[in-house]
Amino acid sequence: MSKKGKLLVISGPSGAGKSSVVFKAIEGRDDICFSTSVTTRNPRPGEVDGREYFFVKLERFLEMIKNNELLEHAEYVSNRYGTPRAYVQQRLDEGKNVVLDIEIQGARQVRRMMPEAVLIFIAPPSLEELERRLRGRATDTEEAIQGRLKRARQEYQEADFYDYLIVNDDLEKAAAQFNAIIEAEHCRFADWSELLKKA
Amino acid sequence: MSKKGKLLVISGPSGAGKSSVVFKAIEGRDDICFSTSVTTRNPRPGEVDGREYFFVKLERFLEMIKNNELLEHAEYVSNRYGTPRAYVQQRLDEGKNVVLDIEIQGARQVRRMMPEAVLIFIAPPSLEELERRLRGRATDTEEAIQGRLKRARQEYQEADFYDYLIVNDDLEKAAAQFNAIIEAEHCRFADWSELLKKA
Repeated sequence: MSKKGKLLVISGPSGAGKSSVVFKAIEGRDDICFSTSVTTRNPRPGEVDGREYFFVKLERFLEMIKNNELLEHAEYVSNRYGTPRAYVQQRLDEGKNVVLDIEIQGARQVRRMMPEAVLIFIAPPSLEELERRLRGRATDTEEAIQGRLKRARQEYQEADFYDYLIVNDDLEKAAAQFNAIIEAEHCRFADWSELLKKA
Repeated sequence: MSKKGKLLVISGPSGAGKSSVVFKAIEGRDDICFSTSVTTRNPRPGEVDGREYFFVKLERFLEMIKNNELLEHAEYVSNRYGTPRAYVQQRLDEGKNVVLDIEIQGARQVRRMMPEAVLIFIAPPSLEELERRLRGRATDTEEAIQGRLKRARQEYQEADFYDYLIVNDDLEKAAAQFNAIIEAEHCRFADWSELLKKA
C-alpha cells in the first residue's frame, strides 16, 4: 500500500538529546530523513547547496515568506532560516517521514500551516539532569547555562500544543518511543477512512 | 515513574481477527488485560463470577445503567452485557492497559463516558478477504455470511470516530502496530504536561 510520510517536528531544550534520540531511532531505517532548510547565510567551505542548506539571497527569502512557501522561519544571529514547504511536501509524497528540528515558535507556525504534522517534545528527565548535562559539555559559561535553564523552564510552560512528550532518560527507550509514535501515526484512522469507505 | 494505564477499545468486523491480534500483541506483557463484563445471563458450568463475567440480576443491571456505573452496555439474545466503570478505572489506576472488545455502538458510548479512551478499529485487508475468511470457518450459512459482509460495509461507514485503524493482513505486523499505539499513547503530551510545569 503506498502511503504518504509524516512530518515530525521535534523540539526541546538544548541538552535534551534531541539529535541523539532521532539518530538512534533512524539507524537502519531509510523511510526517515531530515528536512533541509533554506538560509540567507553564506555557504561555508565544503557546504553544498541543497545538501546542508538551500542558500538564497534575503530578497528571495522574503518572497518565500510572502508566497507562503515556508512552513516556518526564524532569525538567528542576523541570518534567516526557514523550512521550504514544497521540498517537505515532495519528500512526504514520496513516502518519507521528514524530521524537522526546530524551536517552539517554529513548531507553532508549522501547526498552523500543516495541522497534520506530528509535534514531539523531547525533554531531559529533570531540570537538575539538564543542568548536569550542560555543565558536562563544558562549552558554556555559567551565564549561558543559567540562560538555557531559564529558557527550558519557559519552554515547558509553552509546549502545551505538542502531541507527544519523550522523556530522554534512556536513549534506547527514547528512540523506541520515537519509532512507536511514527508507527502509531501511520495507523491514524483519518488517513485510511476514505479507503474503508470505498470497500 | 508511576503511570496510569490506557483504555483500549477494539472493534471490527467478525473475521477481522481482533482477538488474534490482541493475543499476539500481549504475549509476554503483563501490563495489558481484558476487561471483565457484567452480564444478566446465567453462568454456564465452570464459569466463575468475576472471572468470565460479573453475573448480576436484571434489576441490578438497570440500576447500574441509571447510576452511570457502566461505560457501555448492549443487549444480545435477550441478555444484557455491560462494562463496569469502577472495575476498569481500578485496573487503569493500577497501571494496567485495559482492552475492551466491543461493537461500534458501545465504542461510541465509551467515547462519551471516557473521552481519553483509545479507539482502535481492526479491519481485514479487504471485504473479499473477509468473505474468504468467513467461508473458511465453515460455521456460517450463506445468509449469515452475506449478513456479516453487509454489516462490515455498514461499520466502515460509521467508524469515523475511531482513533486508529489496524489492517490485519499480517498478524505479526498488526500486533506490532497495536503495541506501537499503546507505546505512543503513553507519550501523549497531555498526560505529562503537569509534570513538566512543575519542573
